Amino acid sequence: MQLPPTVEWKENSVAVINQTCLPRELKIIELTDVKEVADAINNMVVRGAPAIGVTAAMGLALAAIKCKKCSRREVMAKIQDAYTLLYHTRPTAVNLVWALDRIMKRINSMNGEGDTIAEAAVNEANSIAQEDLDINKHLGYFGSSLLKDNDTILTHCNAGALATVGYGTALGIIRSALEEGKSVKVIATETRPLLQGARLTCFELNFENIPVTLITDNMVGSVISRGFVDKVIVGADRVMASGHVINKIGTLTIALVAHAFQVPFYVAAPLSSFDCQTALDKVVIEERDSDEIRKLLNIQITPKNIPVYNPAFDITPPSYISGIITEKGVLKPPYKKAISSLVSLSYSS
Amino acid sequence: MQLPPTVEWKENSVAVINQTCLPRELKIIELTDVKEVADAINNMVVRGAPAIGVTAAMGLALAAIKCKKCSRREVMAKIQDAYTLLYHTRPTAVNLVWALDRIMKRINSMNGEGDTIAEAAVNEANSIAQEDLDINKHLGYFGSSLLKDNDTILTHCNAGALATVGYGTALGIIRSALEEGKSVKVIATETRPLLQGARLTCFELNFENIPVTLITDNMVGSVISRGFVDKVIVGADRVMASGHVINKIGTLTIALVAHAFQVPFYVAAPLSSFDCQTALDKVVIEERDSDEIRKLLNIQITPKNIPVYNPAFDITPPSYISGIITEKGVLKPPYKKAISSLVSLSYSS
Repeated sequence: MQLPPTVEWKENSVAVINQTCLPRELKIIELTDVKEVADAINNMVVRGAPAIGVTAAMGLALAAIKCKKCSRREVMAKIQDAYTLLYHTRPTAVNLVWALDRIMKRINSMNGEGDTIAEAAVNEANSIAQEDLDINKHLGYFGSSLLKDNDTILTHCNAGALATVGYGTALGIIRSALEEGKSVKVIATETRPLLQGARLTCFELNFENIPVTLITDNMVGSVISRGFVDKVIVGADRVMASGHVINKIGTLTIALVAHAFQVPFYVAAPLSSFDCQTALDKVVIEERDSDEIRKLLNIQITPKNIPVYNPAFDITPPSYISGIITEKGVLKPPYKKAISSLVSLSYSS
Repeated sequence: MQLPPTVEWKENSVAVINQTCLPRELKIIELTDVKEVADAINNMVVRGAPAIGVTAAMGLALAAIKCKKCSRREVMAKIQDAYTLLYHTRPTAVNLVWALDRIMKRINSMNGEGDTIAEAAVNEANSIAQEDLDINKHLGYFGSSLLKDNDTILTHCNAGALATVGYGTALGIIRSALEEGKSVKVIATETRPLLQGARLTCFELNFENIPVTLITDNMVGSVISRGFVDKVIVGADRVMASGHVINKIGTLTIALVAHAFQVPFYVAAPLSSFDCQTALDKVVIEERDSDEIRKLLNIQITPKNIPVYNPAFDITPPSYISGIITEKGVLKPPYKKAISSLVSLSYSS
């Protein structure tokens, strides 16, 4: 059995799997305007850097089709408002801005009134969605070359089908290895505070009968020190020109542990997650609501008002990363050089 | 305001704080027979290596006073049954066996019938409880000499008043530093699966207005890499002759991260937590029920029957430990030598 797409364009809406309901219920909801799309990203109904990008692009397309009968000036103003709203939903994953800018570039470069602009926006958003699947298959192909038969792969958070349109990045590599006939198993960290590992990774692997064992985040030292893990593969919310990887909180801790026991630590990231423009110290690490930690499933677990530190991401330095797996191949250190070659190559292609 | 004792001998019962109710409710329950004591340890109503030891000792005393009017032979048989029951409650914390054996040694060495034996067992259990407080004050004194004014201390799980009769080991050091007028702050890891950090450490520090900030376990890399932590202090369930420290799952992960960023990593352990008899590979690392991870507060968070790995402890090698703080002073590497000197010294004293 295969999962439905995480995000899909319908005639006048964006259909997304409501990930806050998983694993209890596989529920698809239809977002009918850009405000609903922004809320869905904000509230992590849709999450995962590539899926956020596609959903935001479709949000812009939704804004555009509401102005099919408008003048160019009117539709562009509405799209600009939608851009601003979507841009500010979540600050760290760079695919969001990448996808929004791609739609803008397409419609800015063309002539025509509301109907033409809307059609172009929809087409471009659908292209981004289709490319996401293709990219993940290529990324999976390159990544699976790193895996051996009988490997156990530790992964963090959810860099799976549910973090993309489908197939996934880190979990796409697992799928690819399985398709090639390799027997691989997964250890998933639960990923507090929002439990994307326990809820989403376990759900999607279990759904396809891919073997997975769940651990709490603090068991990483235990399982790696006991030799239970052959490789680590995680996703990325942003890869910097220097090779620093910004990903779900907990990634750095895992990288340090893997390094101490010489277990290879790989990052799976499509080129849309690379940011070669921004200085590392200018990246905003999102701080989320303290109640995500103080409460679990809306039940208070701590004394009320206990001070909390709740960064959603951390930064893993390149020295802890064995390779960055992209749809164009596997980057190896020194990353600065490898990334700069790859990015200039893909801009020119 | 001060917390009541975690465990206390009453005329015909053992009064304990029910830690499964914290932080919701500070509830004291009275255990009236050895079966109730064993269940309380099993179900983590009482937890923390030193508190488990004291509670088990009082469990033996309870068994003894029920046989006050019996012959020596009868009371010894009942105590032996109680010993076996308590011995098998939890396998990893060595204080349990240490405390049980101390009661046995006392009563085995004396003459008399049921009443005399019972009185001796009660007295010995009360001595262990009183000594626990004294030990923690001494340990706190030695540990606080390692802390500077304005230090931020990261701690894991709960090695506090609630893990002992009172005052605590790791948190006893914090209390001691504060009593000496140093301004110190605590960062507490929530400690999945049973959330002893979020529930107990936050509760007990908050109760005494000691500043504490809560993080999830996977944020350790983030807070240490950003320079928010000056020292780490954790407790221990068992310290081996080699200096290997067995403590709550997650301890090893923290030690590895602290080591990577050259943050001192200290272990606070009374001598009753040292085990110089057992080979490291013979120590049983308790595996607890999978539903502790699959469920949170009795609500299913994962797909049903997802395989889980749930070791309650991990093993930190001596090379990652900057010092082991005891009631006799701070041990420094090489630990094998330091531990052997200290233990032979205290046996001869």
